[in-house]
Amino acid sequence: MGLSVYSDDHFMKEAIKQAEIAFEDKEIPVGAVVVCNNKIIARAYNQTEKLNDSTAHAEMIALTAAFNYLGGKYLPDCSIYITLEPCIMCAGALYWSQIGKIIFGAPDQKRGYRTVKSEILHPKTEVIEGILAEDCKQILDKFFNTIRNI
Amino acid sequence: MGLSVYSDDHFMKEAIKQAEIAFEDKEIPVGAVVVCNNKIIARAYNQTEKLNDSTAHAEMIALTAAFNYLGGKYLPDCSIYITLEPCIMCAGALYWSQIGKIIFGAPDQKRGYRTVKSEILHPKTEVIEGILAEDCKQILDKFFNTIRNI
Repeated sequence: MGLSVYSDDHFMKEAIKQAEIAFEDKEIPVGAVVVCNNKIIARAYNQTEKLNDSTAHAEMIALTAAFNYLGGKYLPDCSIYITLEPCIMCAGALYWSQIGKIIFGAPDQKRGYRTVKSEILHPKTEVIEGILAEDCKQILDKFFNTIRNI
Repeated sequence: MGLSVYSDDHFMKEAIKQAEIAFEDKEIPVGAVVVCNNKIIARAYNQTEKLNDSTAHAEMIALTAAFNYLGGKYLPDCSIYITLEPCIMCAGALYWSQIGKIIFGAPDQKRGYRTVKSEILHPKTEVIEGILAEDCKQILDKFFNTIRNI
């Protein structure tokens, strides 16, 4: 049957495309897409350098774009695909959004929200990890290796 | 000697003025100002309703405005005055900003960042709490009492 157009891999690939744009822009390459009824309603990538804003993470921008698209401030029927495990700020934002599902690729053992010894996501939010994790990690490794070699 | 223009009370009063604007706009009345070299460089209030964005907290908007003003994405020489203890998202944002000092008024026992069993602020960030706490709390109580009586 091959890969369904609507598989988690499919949407994660779209998030990776966002991370690739970040990479080209010399940003830490993290991307995110928000999906509602099998449709991508928001795409974003990390823009902390471009916007000179250390809070301009892919997830924050994607959430605000999704609220804007739907005209509502909660996303219980949406999923967000993120190439990297969200940080504490983004997990807090995802809590407020009441998002239905979080799907992330690579784990972030240093700054990921799971470093916090409390449950900080919304109790109704489902989490899936490890989708295309290797691809998500590879672009980050490539970025940091490039920086080190400058 | 009376109250110095540059006291914590002075700046917290400015944050309360922002909360009052939120109140008038039927927003949960939380306000924030960012101070750098005794000068207010950003003022903001909660706009979750107006922007239809559950992440549009006073602190998030104030931080982005401060980055914009300074043209840099870190605020080690700034202080933020907030009428209410920041939530987990905002504490995560304050972490990324490396802000020098956080001064907040009322505690938030339900959603405040201190409900998390880990240190989530930047290790260099100083925290002062309880400045004009009663005034900061009063406007929130008034707001929630009004809502209950509608």
